[in-house]
Amino acid sequence: MPEYVQVQVAVDGRATAAALARSVVSAGLAACAQAVGPMTSVYRWKGEIETAEEFLLLVKTTRERSGELIEHIRREHPYETPEIIALPVVGGLGAYLRWIDEETARVPLQP
Amino acid sequence: MPEYVQVQVAVDGRATAAALARSVVSAGLAACAQAVGPMTSVYRWKGEIETAEEFLLLVKTTRERSGELIEHIRREHPYETPEIIALPVVGGLGAYLRWIDEETARVPLQP
Amino acid sequence: MPEYVQVQVAVDGRATAAALARSVVSAGLAACAQAVGPMTSVYRWKGEIETAEEFLLLVKTTRERSGELIEHIRREHPYETPEIIALPVVGGLGAYLRWIDEETARVPLQP
Repeated sequence: MPEYVQVQVAVDGRATAAALARSVVSAGLAACAQAVGPMTSVYRWKGEIETAEEFLLLVKTTRERSGELIEHIRREHPYETPEIIALPVVGGLGAYLRWIDEETARVPLQP
Repeated sequence: MPEYVQVQVAVDGRATAAALARSVVSAGLAACAQAVGPMTSVYRWKGEIETAEEFLLLVKTTRERSGELIEHIRREHPYETPEIIALPVVGGLGAYLRWIDEETARVPLQP
Repeated sequence: MPEYVQVQVAVDGRATAAALARSVVSAGLAACAQAVGPMTSVYRWKGEIETAEEFLLLVKTTRERSGELIEHIRREHPYETPEIIALPVVGGLGAYLRWIDEETARVPLQP
């Protein structure tokens, strides 16, 4: 897994998205979280094709904190088996990536 | 390519997105598909900068089924050269990733 | 870094997203750019949890041009430390990936 990841979470609505975004940033497990939506999700559940309106949360963090972040989201998410996936970040603006490090560091980084 | 991928497809509208989402899930080539939009796409076509309103489809599947999925989308897509790209999933909630396996397995998995 | 990447940029509104999309495509640094939004962004700034409405720009290019693209976006972006991250593209429709090559080639490719 590369140094930084974008964790992607599907949630059931705007309010859940906002609460989860605030929760992961407040806990210091993510530098930021963006709620995109509404979107239309199509999936099969118990043999039937289902459609639901959801929101997508895009959460930026480091590889090091991603396990704790995924567990934190699982605990707070209203679904039993929510979509929580991690996509790799393989590059970007150096100053922004360092900001992700600073915002998710267990101990404040030396300037 | 990692074990799971998110295939991203740009389509010309909500109806095409919904039909394509339903088609890939029904075919057992994807666990779910989410239609985000409308979005504004900017690109160059025959030397001119063009703008179009599109929708973005985010399709979750396994590496193993991704080739068939991409070919299925190509056949059903109204464009001649549609955006169909695969982004790697490098982690996530284990139970969710297993759900992707189950939903896209050629032969039902043993519980 | 794989051959193709999707550069993801958070911007402060629709107009900035449209201008930046047009700028990167006109400069030949990207094949296309899609503006998704509005989205709600949550982040910590100087110790406070902040919320802002933003747009997300998804920009397709090659690894080879990604450094120039990121620098171009940094120069044109209204923020001092904008979110500019690169996610890897590990597969997709061959004809579309070749289109990305053609649209971002320094010297027109032989057909």
